[in-house]
Amino acid sequence: MHITGQMLIGSRDVTGSQAAIRGIDPATNEALDPPYNGGTQDDVNTACELAAQAFRTYRKTSLEERAGFLEKVAERIEAIGDALIERAHRETGLPLPRLQGERARTVGQLRLFARELRRGDWIDARVDCALPERQPLPRSDIRLQYIPVGPVAVFGASNFPLAFSVAGGDTAAALAAGAPVVVKGHSAHPGTSELVGRAVREAVQECGLPEGVFSLLFGSGSEIGQSLAKHPAIKAVAFTGSRSAGVSLMKTAAARPEPIPVFAEMSSINPVFLLPGALAQRAADVARGFVQSLTMGAGQFCTNPGLVIGLKSAELDAFIQAATEGVKNADSATMLTPGIYSAYQQGVEHLKGQAGATLLAEGKLDSDRSNQCQARLFTAQADAFLAKPHDLGIEVFGASSLVVVCDDEAQMLQLIEKLEGQLTATLHMTEDDTELADRLVDALELKVGRILVNGYPTGVEVCDAMVHGGPFPATSDSRTTSVGTAAIYRFLRPVSYQDVPDAVLPPALKRANPWGIPRREA
Amino acid sequence: MHITGQMLIGSRDVTGSQAAIRGIDPATNEALDPPYNGGTQDDVNTACELAAQAFRTYRKTSLEERAGFLEKVAERIEAIGDALIERAHRETGLPLPRLQGERARTVGQLRLFARELRRGDWIDARVDCALPERQPLPRSDIRLQYIPVGPVAVFGASNFPLAFSVAGGDTAAALAAGAPVVVKGHSAHPGTSELVGRAVREAVQECGLPEGVFSLLFGSGSEIGQSLAKHPAIKAVAFTGSRSAGVSLMKTAAARPEPIPVFAEMSSINPVFLLPGALAQRAADVARGFVQSLTMGAGQFCTNPGLVIGLKSAELDAFIQAATEGVKNADSATMLTPGIYSAYQQGVEHLKGQAGATLLAEGKLDSDRSNQCQARLFTAQADAFLAKPHDLGIEVFGASSLVVVCDDEAQMLQLIEKLEGQLTATLHMTEDDTELADRLVDALELKVGRILVNGYPTGVEVCDAMVHGGPFPATSDSRTTSVGTAAIYRFLRPVSYQDVPDAVLPPALKRANPWGIPRREA
Repeated sequence: MHITGQMLIGSRDVTGSQAAIRGIDPATNEALDPPYNGGTQDDVNTACELAAQAFRTYRKTSLEERAGFLEKVAERIEAIGDALIERAHRETGLPLPRLQGERARTVGQLRLFARELRRGDWIDARVDCALPERQPLPRSDIRLQYIPVGPVAVFGASNFPLAFSVAGGDTAAALAAGAPVVVKGHSAHPGTSELVGRAVREAVQECGLPEGVFSLLFGSGSEIGQSLAKHPAIKAVAFTGSRSAGVSLMKTAAARPEPIPVFAEMSSINPVFLLPGALAQRAADVARGFVQSLTMGAGQFCTNPGLVIGLKSAELDAFIQAATEGVKNADSATMLTPGIYSAYQQGVEHLKGQAGATLLAEGKLDSDRSNQCQARLFTAQADAFLAKPHDLGIEVFGASSLVVVCDDEAQMLQLIEKLEGQLTATLHMTEDDTELADRLVDALELKVGRILVNGYPTGVEVCDAMVHGGPFPATSDSRTTSVGTAAIYRFLRPVSYQDVPDAVLPPALKRANPWGIPRREA
Repeated sequence: MHITGQMLIGSRDVTGSQAAIRGIDPATNEALDPPYNGGTQDDVNTACELAAQAFRTYRKTSLEERAGFLEKVAERIEAIGDALIERAHRETGLPLPRLQGERARTVGQLRLFARELRRGDWIDARVDCALPERQPLPRSDIRLQYIPVGPVAVFGASNFPLAFSVAGGDTAAALAAGAPVVVKGHSAHPGTSELVGRAVREAVQECGLPEGVFSLLFGSGSEIGQSLAKHPAIKAVAFTGSRSAGVSLMKTAAARPEPIPVFAEMSSINPVFLLPGALAQRAADVARGFVQSLTMGAGQFCTNPGLVIGLKSAELDAFIQAATEGVKNADSATMLTPGIYSAYQQGVEHLKGQAGATLLAEGKLDSDRSNQCQARLFTAQADAFLAKPHDLGIEVFGASSLVVVCDDEAQMLQLIEKLEGQLTATLHMTEDDTELADRLVDALELKVGRILVNGYPTGVEVCDAMVHGGPFPATSDSRTTSVGTAAIYRFLRPVSYQDVPDAVLPPALKRANPWGIPRREA
């Protein structure tokens, strides 16, 4: 498979007519071939109209057909081979093993959704049988199933060029739900996007599905994305990226003549709480794990531990000392794009300029390569943090973290109150810390989507019980997750059928249950 | 129990300091005692802060405690006795048997949610057990449960003074989810609201729950409602009412520093399709049932059949003739409020002024009583409707309907394309109509929340499989329902727990499953 610099609109290769974007090797700032000219409003219209057309038949595919399609997408992605990993490496600076792992996650989550499709319990089929003799009024036969909302616009994320991009989690969940997808490829990795896009299209064709099930558009700036979110055929938006871009999509979607849901995963600093028992037992170990989690992938994770909270003590000092050493010894790493690097530098400068914050450590710098993220560790007293939580608690996307020292447990709890919504919170604890942990979890449940104990928030398992979500601004809708099988619900809506004859009922609800799915019957 | 004209803010009776509202007997336009002075921003703050405080403990109540509370609310409402029915009758003009039935529905849905709570499957508990040996990376123990989003603002509906008001479906679903409720009582039935509010408060006290679990506010105009939707302690809004008020709440909620979901059930004309086989077999019967559904309760239902669609034929003419006779013979009925009556009259005048629409029939008028809804039946050719679907397809809240005559099936499908989102669509059909029904259902699934066959859309069963929802503008969020047990999901969000020790895990997720709820284990 080779790349051409074109958009994929249904079955057609389309060369854009707007300003071009190019992949950039962030280690060298070298611009890569080919250029990707951006699409126009007409291109958006074509992709969305094809999606609307495809929706009519795609939504009706059987569980087995749709599962087979997702598996075929996984197979075609694997079939690209090393070319995909190499291109992604050039475009993102991410190490090869990381990208190999990310590819495994990408095909793994496509296959997980195939399994979920075959289980069929996501349909939440419910049957309330007729009660003709009921007094004072008989009950009708009423049946419920979930159906897809309609075509979904997916915005690829910069930091997961495979697992949260063209055929990533959002696309897998939407396709599983029965929703065609129009992807706005992230400008940071257009070549990777095209490769994966072609794999998806091959799967569409091999499975005999309508071409509009998948399209891939490019465009510099926010115009294409805004047009997509405004198009009447689009019924939901899935986005992973910055808070400002996410909020802007939320506003656009809310202002449509027909408002639509936006599932934006945006911003999180993922507080880590160090409880006294854990610090007494293993301060240095926790510091080692923390520095690893902080610096992995240049800290470019939504779940990066950007805030550490402990109680003033010799043990916390020991943690701080070990973490300081660790950060000082951490190698620099290439960031995804010059833009992300410059935002990181600005974030670090912002923290340096805060009266209450002290820089503890700065990681190494490989000056032979561009866009190098040097890890940073700051510290502040809780009083200072509480006085300006938004200044000290900002998300610095990259390997920077702030250790906040609390006088007592009450201050720890106060600090939680001041936090915005988060994707995760982590507790390091031993059995001796149970009482405090209980109180922290009680407060944290209302602020975060996932609570971890004695682990690190980076590394998100793709499974049934995962929640990668949380209150605003972690996401735009805390009632959902973007990772794991429950992510399918974002793109579904319930419909009920009252006294509908068997011949007209959808397969999931026919009396004989031909799909053999679990149903809630009453 | 007697009424005092006060708001119920937690355990306190509060006399408002703003302009008063009064119940009005719509049959006579007589203003009823006592006056209800409106609340201030301070009152909103107090109610919301009490709710936030109560949330800390209320959300932690056991399934049994919460179920018992809902049952106690039902019991206390029944204990009010005839005084409730009589007051509601005075304030709404609705007939006594209808109000008795509505009370039964109200307590029935509280008890249904109690049953749902005890089942526990709404928690959607999921357990992915640890896989320490997995390659290349071990899997953590990950568990998921749904928890309440936080305090909910409920806006009582005018047309269901019991079943969708102070302790109606929204309140029942929110309280079941573990969310405290602050109700803005509808100004059309303040006395009914106070009676029910006092019953809820008694249940709160008898169950030893924190006072902030329930508050009831009053206010003329939209100020109190807007303040409620803006208050930072409020995490979701449930509303049933007009499109303009619903859209205004959506805008307010989206513009908050922390945007919150709004579940607004707003506007629907509930198309009824008359298929040839059904018309050939029983045009007059269908007409009789239709007129009954149209005129019941002065047509003041969200599911009122405001649009009838058939194919040009002698059989359709027979239906139209029978329906015309039926409407002419229909008695007038008192509308809920002078405002609703005047909006109905305006809607009827609007349709009379439309070039393509012809008035077929006008029901009787009881000139001894005020605010009388005379039923109206209009007809139009499909061409005219398709040319201006928004003018001819407006919702006229009350007993008015429009019969649209299509030249052929293609035009019927075209008409569906032009429809906005609806709560329901109905098909009258026989086996001979199966092929056409199939195509109509295919198109209607994307437009409505519930599809009925050979029935009438009014009368919404409260059960597991009910969807009272649908695409905008039927509701603000098609992914939910406001009637039936699935309504609880509006007020829940998922949280996952990774490697959290049993002592700290919530009961629903502890290893021994002490609540004995169904869990999805992998």
